[in-house]
Amino acid sequence: MELENIVGAENIRLKDDGSAVIIIDQTLLPNECVFLTLDKPEELYDAIKQLRVRGAPAIGIFAAYAIYVLAEKYPECDGDEFFARFKTDCEYLNSSRPTAVNLSAMLRRMCAVAEDNIALPRRELLAALRAEAEAIHREDMDMCRAIAQYALTVVNPGDTVLTYCNAGPLATSRYGTAQGPYYLAKETGFDLKAICCETRPLLQGARLTSYELTLAGVDCTLICDNMASIVMKQGKVQACFVGCDRVAANGDAANKIGTSGVAILAKHYGIPFYVLGPSTTIDFNCPTGDQIEIELRDPEEIKEKFYEKSMALPQVKCYNPAFDVTDSSLISGIITERGIARAPYRESLKAMFPEV
Amino acid sequence: MELENIVGAENIRLKDDGSAVIIIDQTLLPNECVFLTLDKPEELYDAIKQLRVRGAPAIGIFAAYAIYVLAEKYPECDGDEFFARFKTDCEYLNSSRPTAVNLSAMLRRMCAVAEDNIALPRRELLAALRAEAEAIHREDMDMCRAIAQYALTVVNPGDTVLTYCNAGPLATSRYGTAQGPYYLAKETGFDLKAICCETRPLLQGARLTSYELTLAGVDCTLICDNMASIVMKQGKVQACFVGCDRVAANGDAANKIGTSGVAILAKHYGIPFYVLGPSTTIDFNCPTGDQIEIELRDPEEIKEKFYEKSMALPQVKCYNPAFDVTDSSLISGIITERGIARAPYRESLKAMFPEV
Repeated sequence: MELENIVGAENIRLKDDGSAVIIIDQTLLPNECVFLTLDKPEELYDAIKQLRVRGAPAIGIFAAYAIYVLAEKYPECDGDEFFARFKTDCEYLNSSRPTAVNLSAMLRRMCAVAEDNIALPRRELLAALRAEAEAIHREDMDMCRAIAQYALTVVNPGDTVLTYCNAGPLATSRYGTAQGPYYLAKETGFDLKAICCETRPLLQGARLTSYELTLAGVDCTLICDNMASIVMKQGKVQACFVGCDRVAANGDAANKIGTSGVAILAKHYGIPFYVLGPSTTIDFNCPTGDQIEIELRDPEEIKEKFYEKSMALPQVKCYNPAFDVTDSSLISGIITERGIARAPYRESLKAMFPEV
Repeated sequence: MELENIVGAENIRLKDDGSAVIIIDQTLLPNECVFLTLDKPEELYDAIKQLRVRGAPAIGIFAAYAIYVLAEKYPECDGDEFFARFKTDCEYLNSSRPTAVNLSAMLRRMCAVAEDNIALPRRELLAALRAEAEAIHREDMDMCRAIAQYALTVVNPGDTVLTYCNAGPLATSRYGTAQGPYYLAKETGFDLKAICCETRPLLQGARLTSYELTLAGVDCTLICDNMASIVMKQGKVQACFVGCDRVAANGDAANKIGTSGVAILAKHYGIPFYVLGPSTTIDFNCPTGDQIEIELRDPEEIKEKFYEKSMALPQVKCYNPAFDVTDSSLISGIITERGIARAPYRESLKAMFPEV
């Protein structure tokens, strides 16, 4: 593993000669921006497991490059042996975080390409694999860009949009989902300002979103989560853009804990509230938000993590849900790469994705 | 200065022989509960200035005891000299936090008692001063108890009440205002549970409220501020009790930043929201919340304070208002020591305090 200190490059990229994957170590942000050059199975596995790379789309892209980098180093052998090794390495990488959907889905895509091209000469087989990994990366970028383009149609130049948690470049590819509009706006000269909520307890808004936006030159103001009401009341917010982890068929949207509170405040103050996410987050088999189970996490995240000293007595009980569900009645629109779905969502989402 | 380590005694008390004031050093909570025994002018001044004692009522009580402790040590002298020293010491203590209303008000009361009794023999003069300081303490306790009694009439045994920030025993005398009902409930066998919000950025809910409630044996659960929506949605909250820093004549209430957000969520979920405070916080000269100026504080509180490392880049802009105003339309009742005012507040508050 070799360390580089560079600010401003891509979050995940294949080294030009295809021999390694280069990522930003997200566990060190915002205090240090360290690029890691990874080429060994254990390093690649660990990068996912230790959350050095995080965000479902980013993990998928990373895994595709990672398996290519490993395959590129296989010793001379026949197709059967190549494919056996390839499958074993895919399974190994996939076991780093068993619940990440994009991780297994993208490794399956890579496996299918290996299988389809296994009879080709090694050089052509590797070229097909590299092309697939690059396609996965590009598709994510295109999807994020499409979401951002639709999102910019619901705001005006000069607007300030409040955002929550992190679904920006670090979690995806260049643009991100919830924060994609800010980067596209910057790129296209559309004046869009950000207010970002710190997002307790893990502070993704402070540590990652305000980091990314500020370095990108976006006018960004960080607030504590409990300050969303006052900035809305003062007329400082023209819209809200949030991401989503899972959208039910009726439009109820699960996202980072606290999102539903922002939606209720926005409704109270008459501010439009948009959920931004790729079609892959829409779960047509989940009828409503009531069927979405909420992960409960360690009290230590509330009382201890990040702090110099404890912020509450050891015996204090904590309740620490990781997500909440925003009722579809609070959502002004769900913005996907195909366009903007409006209420009633059961119908509009189905019409947008007739093939599902 | 002598240190003692005792848990469970009064927050502020006069040493039995009247020679010192004993307080909990609030700056060390919740990691250490250290009692300080203070008797020197600089120590007493510093305790207020360094926030070892905080909360407007607590500062007022402390200052009354403090000036008594100083007077008790004056060398033998005539009334004129005694009163001149007394006034000088009052001015010195009062300069520790120039904006604290209770501080100057309680020192004025002590000064008036000194002036009225200056002709008495030293022993009787000191007895009158001690009695006044004890009266100030007792009056605060009675007022808090009365507020708590009225508050318990709007909830039922078995209820869970969400609370915010800290206006408990540490900030006042035995009961506190916003958190008084939990202690009175505990004392009287009324089953009342608490959910307390951590209250970013200074975490008074985590550091102080969850500390006080848990040690007092109240069933208390700590959440991050952005989890208020999910606990309300899940039916875990039957009412909200919050404190107030200033209530306008129309019932708009300024309190710790984030309070207005809790009120909006409560309204959305149909949960009653009560503001608890002594009559001294009602400002009949302030027509509405729009006239209440909001203090802006240091970005460091959001990005740095309490943390082992920075949680955002140094160049990230922050907005850090200390308070917000809850619109009176969101308030189910304002609970004072005289009873519960209901909307329309301009009329009900005036009727409750006809003398003002």
